[in-house]
Amino acid sequence: MSAPVVILSHPQLGENIGAAARAMANFGLSELRLVAPQCPWPNERATAMAVTARALTDEAKVSATLKEALGDLELVFATTARERGVTKEILTPAEAARRMRRAGDVKIGILFGNERAGLENEEVSLCDAVITIPTAGFASLNLGQAVLLAVYEWFRAADETASSRIDHGPLHRPPTRDEMFKLFAHLEHDLTESGFLFPPNKRDGMVRGIRAILHRTRLTYQETQTIRGMLVALTRGKYRGEKKADGDS
Amino acid sequence: MSAPVVILSHPQLGENIGAAARAMANFGLSELRLVAPQCPWPNERATAMAVTARALTDEAKVSATLKEALGDLELVFATTARERGVTKEILTPAEAARRMRRAGDVKIGILFGNERAGLENEEVSLCDAVITIPTAGFASLNLGQAVLLAVYEWFRAADETASSRIDHGPLHRPPTRDEMFKLFAHLEHDLTESGFLFPPNKRDGMVRGIRAILHRTRLTYQETQTIRGMLVALTRGKYRGEKKADGDS
Repeated sequence: MSAPVVILSHPQLGENIGAAARAMANFGLSELRLVAPQCPWPNERATAMAVTARALTDEAKVSATLKEALGDLELVFATTARERGVTKEILTPAEAARRMRRAGDVKIGILFGNERAGLENEEVSLCDAVITIPTAGFASLNLGQAVLLAVYEWFRAADETASSRIDHGPLHRPPTRDEMFKLFAHLEHDLTESGFLFPPNKRDGMVRGIRAILHRTRLTYQETQTIRGMLVALTRGKYRGEKKADGDS
Repeated sequence: MSAPVVILSHPQLGENIGAAARAMANFGLSELRLVAPQCPWPNERATAMAVTARALTDEAKVSATLKEALGDLELVFATTARERGVTKEILTPAEAARRMRRAGDVKIGILFGNERAGLENEEVSLCDAVITIPTAGFASLNLGQAVLLAVYEWFRAADETASSRIDHGPLHRPPTRDEMFKLFAHLEHDLTESGFLFPPNKRDGMVRGIRAILHRTRLTYQETQTIRGMLVALTRGKYRGEKKADGDS
């Protein structure tokens, strides 16, 4: 399955073309097409803004008409900010992305209009469906932002990154139950000695509350050792004092 | 439930601060805080880039230290591009957004680092969890793009826009079944007259195939009338011709 082609119709600002290229590269798209750019082309500002995605601007295909730019594509979405007079299916970027992924091995395009005027109705009429990005109140996304959100959704629709993870790394394995039990025993011993677990009839509830905190933090083995080291340091003077007192008595 | 605060630590470029403000306004966030900006502040480029979100840059609170900027917040996410040495929970922007929505009425912050260096480990250590935006290969999102994707996900997590819709408008109501049946009858009559529905034993299957096309297009009432008008126009000369022929015979 190949990534969608991004087509910018009559773009005015090199910065936006460069921002589009950078957004595309971040999400695995590589083919950029320009229809009748309104700025000089090639364009220094586009190259500067593309940064590491420079290959995309260097290799962008330029055509004189939209029909030429769309000719070989099999499924094309037109991105518009506002409602159109044309009765056409309007999709969220997420829904459009799901359809792109479901479409299988077809050549897909996502079309964006000019910065000031957007897409003309004539241009929209050459596309299968419309993408409109939902926003809070009056939409004022610029061209680079609109491209970013559309290509992000395409990537996201197939992304398998765990929604939550902790990168323990080789030195940061989770502790075994026994290692947690040793931490509990160490802490509970010191808290008993120090008189914190008082009165005796509250002791068990207090202990369970403290164990819950330690479980909730999902410690690494290394961190259980750090806490035990902290306990040793915190109680060192105290025990010495007590031992001395004991010895004196 | 109030929208999250966005905090930019040591931002270098006014353009990025303005782009962040514009992204925020598009998705319903209004409070921007800056920690020790490295560019002159107030900043013309920030204002120019913010466009309609100028109020956010005008009213941005500036503080000297991150601790000062985070002091009143109850849940803070640090956005980083790459793995950190620190063992900390790493979330996708989507998962972080779900947690923000679930957290209820707490004051939330999303923290972004300096353009070149990102967030320092010391800064990350003041936050509850980390957001890392999944990308294809080497991540090279700029600051404005990272803010856009994070605030978009916050908006998206509670957005109820229909994933697909057709805006029929008052003049574009869907046809009743009867109106569709009239269109079918009109078309099938003309296709019979013209000899298209041939041979007779294939007729029923052909008719069903044509009706399926017409259903799939989800026509408006107006469009059914347009098609019938097209049929009248397309067959006008033809029937006249036939009638003349008939009259001659």
